[in-house]
Amino acid sequence: MTATQIDGRAIAARMMFETLTEAKALADAGWQPRLVSISVGDVAAAELYVRNQQKQAEAAGVEFEARNYPSEISLEQLTGVLAGLNADPRVNGIIIQRPLPAHIPVKTLQKAVHPLKDVEGMHPSSIGNIVYNDLALGPCTAVAAVEILKSLPLKVEGLDVCVIGHSEIVGKPIAFLMMGLGATVTVCHHMTRQVSVHSRRADAVFVAVGKPGLVTGEMLKPGAALIDIGINRVEGKTVGDADFASCAEVAGWITPVPGGVGPVTVAILMKNAVLATRMQMEHYRSAFAIAV
Amino acid sequence: MTATQIDGRAIAARMMFETLTEAKALADAGWQPRLVSISVGDVAAAELYVRNQQKQAEAAGVEFEARNYPSEISLEQLTGVLAGLNADPRVNGIIIQRPLPAHIPVKTLQKAVHPLKDVEGMHPSSIGNIVYNDLALGPCTAVAAVEILKSLPLKVEGLDVCVIGHSEIVGKPIAFLMMGLGATVTVCHHMTRQVSVHSRRADAVFVAVGKPGLVTGEMLKPGAALIDIGINRVEGKTVGDADFASCAEVAGWITPVPGGVGPVTVAILMKNAVLATRMQMEHYRSAFAIAV
Repeated sequence: MTATQIDGRAIAARMMFETLTEAKALADAGWQPRLVSISVGDVAAAELYVRNQQKQAEAAGVEFEARNYPSEISLEQLTGVLAGLNADPRVNGIIIQRPLPAHIPVKTLQKAVHPLKDVEGMHPSSIGNIVYNDLALGPCTAVAAVEILKSLPLKVEGLDVCVIGHSEIVGKPIAFLMMGLGATVTVCHHMTRQVSVHSRRADAVFVAVGKPGLVTGEMLKPGAALIDIGINRVEGKTVGDADFASCAEVAGWITPVPGGVGPVTVAILMKNAVLATRMQMEHYRSAFAIAV
Repeated sequence: MTATQIDGRAIAARMMFETLTEAKALADAGWQPRLVSISVGDVAAAELYVRNQQKQAEAAGVEFEARNYPSEISLEQLTGVLAGLNADPRVNGIIIQRPLPAHIPVKTLQKAVHPLKDVEGMHPSSIGNIVYNDLALGPCTAVAAVEILKSLPLKVEGLDVCVIGHSEIVGKPIAFLMMGLGATVTVCHHMTRQVSVHSRRADAVFVAVGKPGLVTGEMLKPGAALIDIGINRVEGKTVGDADFASCAEVAGWITPVPGGVGPVTVAILMKNAVLATRMQMEHYRSAFAIAV
């Protein structure tokens, strides 16, 4: 193995420390950051995930309330719940846990969260603001992947970047976050004729598809950075989208799975929670300001 | 010259005819589409442009009111004007003409237009919806460029596309509109190391930078489609970003400037005006629906 393994937990720990400091300052000013997590129905699939968020929230000085609603709840009832949380000054951020029952379309819920409380960065106006290079609350996984790249000793301006996977919440946001930083970005996906033509030219490759072993060493340029966003269960183990062994022989830097993008994503969620609280504080102050 | 010259005026005429039919149907239902154009200060630069929009609006069955405000108007007054237009049922679309005086930031105005009246497709939530592949009101120039490409006998899925220029309202939206259609997209800009490395591999090149002669024939793959979005004044003539003579020797299809993307952009603006009117009608109907 020639690649340097990127330590996502160390990057996350650094961010969490900054977030904790900021959360304490806000709490001192009367703005204790507080998240509400919404899950619907049988949550066995998401439970471990939610419990981890809760633990990380505590470590970041963010209060966390996990709510579970029965799977029979209607879309109207659930958007009513969200309207209540939007109007509640004690709630600074709302997380919508997936999976949701089939009758609850996730996009409708995402749009029902006020953009200033959208800590997951999923609201269309949050996404549009990234395109405008006006990053407020960005989608956590995409922001985490980009933060990891930024931690490497590479000059991002002019960097040739290949993003494999063009989902709305990971691939596309990574693409325009990197464009905003001055990289030349190519986005590949299942309709791309030959992904390796693009990936082999790239100084950095992001992969977020959900197919174990999709990226192999011969698809990389020697010395390239590989940021693996995939999370797959294979024979009881969690693996990414890269064939780690062969990629680590060619890449210059590589993220492990687990221990790479995952912990940084949770750290970004907490950072967003604190940032959202600050934005709400400023919004409140300007709304209550008196012109003299 | 080997390239087929793309007739933007013919494509626009076809769209305008469809829009006129749709506008008449809405007018018959009590929803006559109506645009308000806002310009501020000395409008000599924009006047020809506004007059052309007015003429095209009439041809598309869309009423058009051009308003001009003095350059001393404050940002607060102007956002107040927009709030009034947002609330006015006789106004279906708002166009903010550029340039604006230095004390009026264009983005603040764009955000003050209600997303359902954002016929220019500039509001962050309009842009975010494109990323979500949920095209309602898209930014006119980007949509026009993509519509021109779609009119060619090329299979867009898997097509290798190079976008030169990464502005928020043209380059980036073209990139994710094309991604949404299944193309493999590379976005180049002023920090890209060598644009020709990317453009020469591409089956279709979009250029939107504002530099005459930026794209030359040797930067293209033989037979590629070249969509030129640049509008530059050189020695009293309007030219695009491509060196037309050398590009036309190599490309398979090429848009002229003028007569290419320009007329289609105005046609998309009118199409958006009518679509916005329809969305407002549906919004009104659902707001006034009575549950029985």
